[in-house]
Amino acid sequence: MTTAAADTAMNALIAFQRQTEALSAVAERLSWDQETVMPRGAAEQRAEEMGAMESVLHERRTDPRIGEWLDAAVAQTPAEERTLVLVAREFGRASAIPADLAAELARQTSLSHGIWAAARAADAPQDFLPTLHQIVLLKQDEANALVAAGFGGGDPYDALLDDYEPGATQAELAALFAAMRPRLVALREDVLGAPDQPRPLDSRIAQEAQLRLARACAAAFGYDWTRGRMDLAVHPFSSGRWQDSRITTRVIEAEPLNCIYSTIHEVGHSSYELGIDPDYAFTPLGRGVSMGVHESQSRIYENQMGRGRAFTGWLFQRMQDMAGDLPAPDADAFYRSVNRVTPGHIRTESDEVQYNLHIMMRFDLERDLISGKLSTDDLEEAWNARFLKDFGVAVDRPANGMLQDVHWSAGLFGYFPTYALGNVYAGCLNLAMRAAVPDLDESLGRGEAAPGVEWLRENLQRHGGLHEPRALIERAAGAPVTPEPLLDYLEDKFAAIYRL
Amino acid sequence: MTTAAADTAMNALIAFQRQTEALSAVAERLSWDQETVMPRGAAEQRAEEMGAMESVLHERRTDPRIGEWLDAAVAQTPAEERTLVLVAREFGRASAIPADLAAELARQTSLSHGIWAAARAADAPQDFLPTLHQIVLLKQDEANALVAAGFGGGDPYDALLDDYEPGATQAELAALFAAMRPRLVALREDVLGAPDQPRPLDSRIAQEAQLRLARACAAAFGYDWTRGRMDLAVHPFSSGRWQDSRITTRVIEAEPLNCIYSTIHEVGHSSYELGIDPDYAFTPLGRGVSMGVHESQSRIYENQMGRGRAFTGWLFQRMQDMAGDLPAPDADAFYRSVNRVTPGHIRTESDEVQYNLHIMMRFDLERDLISGKLSTDDLEEAWNARFLKDFGVAVDRPANGMLQDVHWSAGLFGYFPTYALGNVYAGCLNLAMRAAVPDLDESLGRGEAAPGVEWLRENLQRHGGLHEPRALIERAAGAPVTPEPLLDYLEDKFAAIYRL
Repeated sequence: MTTAAADTAMNALIAFQRQTEALSAVAERLSWDQETVMPRGAAEQRAEEMGAMESVLHERRTDPRIGEWLDAAVAQTPAEERTLVLVAREFGRASAIPADLAAELARQTSLSHGIWAAARAADAPQDFLPTLHQIVLLKQDEANALVAAGFGGGDPYDALLDDYEPGATQAELAALFAAMRPRLVALREDVLGAPDQPRPLDSRIAQEAQLRLARACAAAFGYDWTRGRMDLAVHPFSSGRWQDSRITTRVIEAEPLNCIYSTIHEVGHSSYELGIDPDYAFTPLGRGVSMGVHESQSRIYENQMGRGRAFTGWLFQRMQDMAGDLPAPDADAFYRSVNRVTPGHIRTESDEVQYNLHIMMRFDLERDLISGKLSTDDLEEAWNARFLKDFGVAVDRPANGMLQDVHWSAGLFGYFPTYALGNVYAGCLNLAMRAAVPDLDESLGRGEAAPGVEWLRENLQRHGGLHEPRALIERAAGAPVTPEPLLDYLEDKFAAIYRL
Repeated sequence: MTTAAADTAMNALIAFQRQTEALSAVAERLSWDQETVMPRGAAEQRAEEMGAMESVLHERRTDPRIGEWLDAAVAQTPAEERTLVLVAREFGRASAIPADLAAELARQTSLSHGIWAAARAADAPQDFLPTLHQIVLLKQDEANALVAAGFGGGDPYDALLDDYEPGATQAELAALFAAMRPRLVALREDVLGAPDQPRPLDSRIAQEAQLRLARACAAAFGYDWTRGRMDLAVHPFSSGRWQDSRITTRVIEAEPLNCIYSTIHEVGHSSYELGIDPDYAFTPLGRGVSMGVHESQSRIYENQMGRGRAFTGWLFQRMQDMAGDLPAPDADAFYRSVNRVTPGHIRTESDEVQYNLHIMMRFDLERDLISGKLSTDDLEEAWNARFLKDFGVAVDRPANGMLQDVHWSAGLFGYFPTYALGNVYAGCLNLAMRAAVPDLDESLGRGEAAPGVEWLRENLQRHGGLHEPRALIERAAGAPVTPEPLLDYLEDKFAAIYRL
């Protein structure tokens, strides 16, 4: 192999990948359009357009020339070396899955969204379970195909997990979660049993004022409006990268915190993408490196900074100024209300103390579904039994139980644990960030998250996909990943709030 | 060739074309995004994304399998037969242009937009002319390549024109325009010399009220909001087809008619696309058949219906109701103001009487540019001399002269004449529509264009690309295409308005 041939292969690979990345950004923009501005009568057409884009992308991701270029290319820099690793992984995964299985999965998960939504609206699990059964079978096939191609170290669930959190294994996550559970459960018991409970927030704010507040919060967290925008969506999400990462939010007039904290959460996701070194744009290094790391950013923006005493003090004042509303008697009471812990069925509405417990039960249930230990016919019973055991409350209706989340209907098995992992990462990062930026709270109290955001950008976000997820967190945190920083933070915070 | 093989080829061709049509709709949606909602910092990224989409589309449009399928396929229905004609034309044109020429044209016309806009803003033709010179050279190369492949009947300009108005020739258009000119010039002289001149509209309406009025007008013309939406754009346009055709408008507070008639114009374009038989979606029959026919729809909505006495009577009332503004002393005076004819430099602000004269001079100048008779160095002088001759007014500054239109900077040579042809088509259609729907004005006076819109949908729009443009107009109008209906309509209308 001559150097010239290696260079040629490297250049060809990078040029090809550049177009693939651009097309993938187009597909994501199309999804954004669908969820925000698309006319409601355009659904069938959009499905066809998305199908065509997916087909083009699949063809490119499995293009046999990629294999040839990978064989011939020689990296000259760490970034090129890492590019080869990431392209090889994506090429290997895409090529491992037979085209007809990929097509059938795309078809089933596209159809199943409507079926799931209707079943949830009607509280009718039986309308969804046959579809879910098909999806589980297809995901088992996919996992086995990946295992056969050498992914997941022989473990089908790990082969799926690898798509969302490269390098993570169920064994390691199970051990991590087992170590977290006792302290989380103990904290919950203490908190729920405390005599001095915070009052629920009684505040009603009109849509326009909520959106003004949300914009002010996004600005407080440094969201770059020249490379983003904010729109309404049923389920808030962020979308896009490089020069164009947009956020969405939702407005429930009686629950202004929902809009505000959804916005800050999505600003965390978007800012991660926007914070990546622009030199990595249109390469596999130019994306958030894993779902867990992504969630660490949205969570640290939303919780460790956004739900802290300092920032809520500023927010309390802004809500009075901008919405003409006094959400609580004073800033301390407001802070306590923002962080109120209550028993509840819904993961996405959960507080910081209980959130990870919701994840742990989904993690166990989905592992059993993929391994075949649990059949979809028995899922509802298993869910309800587990929920009662873990939360001490019975599920009142399927929409508040096994039908609440969209993930399984979309075939996203292996995705849930990355939420809890993201919380653990956020705990590690918060400890290091607070040490490095001792006056962060002073700044947050003025509605300026900039010193924290800058620390995160410098130590984590800018690196994009350059390091493996765990290595990236450990570099930024300067310590191994353990759950202790998160648990210590939660115990300290809630002991103060609940006067334990 | 067995029937089975022919069927296979036909099915393969249709399936392939279906994906190409979907991808082309995606590219158009991306352009819409860029002109309406895209963050301003995302321009470079979007250029890269558009480039990737164009590259995929070009590869598909020149895929050699299309040639094989076309050879093998046998049409079973008129729609299939026409599909083969349209695919063959597109394949032939795309394949005729060398890939490096296509790429260079795409690059130059992408870059030139900014150069043209800056030159216009600075009134500096010399900043734009070198770029325009390059574009003219590239378009000459393109035209020659098309002629070499058998397009345009040996005439380079006709080979370009064919892209916008299949089947039209410059010889025929020149004869048509020559026949129109004397009556248009005479009418303008009569009108401008008339003692009783309408007063300019003196009305200032805030943005929100203008947009409410625009929505009411779009609804009056039957715009399907379940398959469309309206946004703001610097230069109004419509975008998309089948289940998703969106319009844009602009607001100048001191010129509410600008917003209103831009909206009705774009509703005409969008409604044409939305009115096409849904069975033609994702086929080459599922698009407006030519720019001339497209313009006939936007013009008949805007002018023959929208600027008539009946509809303006309703509009006068709505402007009072919705904007709290009395735009004129009474509905008759309002009608006269709406249709006021004044000397002016700008094509897009022109009245119905002078509009086609603006087109004719562009048509002549661009033919001379493509033939090489006129060099870009002499363009400004030629423009100014011609404008003075045709309009009796000197060009006061280049931005009001040769720099005013975007078309040439985008390489759109052969596009301008389709505007005037669209007006001629609209004249023919209006004559037939009025005969078929005698009570149309009664309905328009109530703000309901439905009977006219339905006639257009039934007789023209639904056919999409099934017939060649001129044949389509002649079927709908029940008569050959001539300029007389348009000229008779203009003379009658403006004689009444100007009391000639």
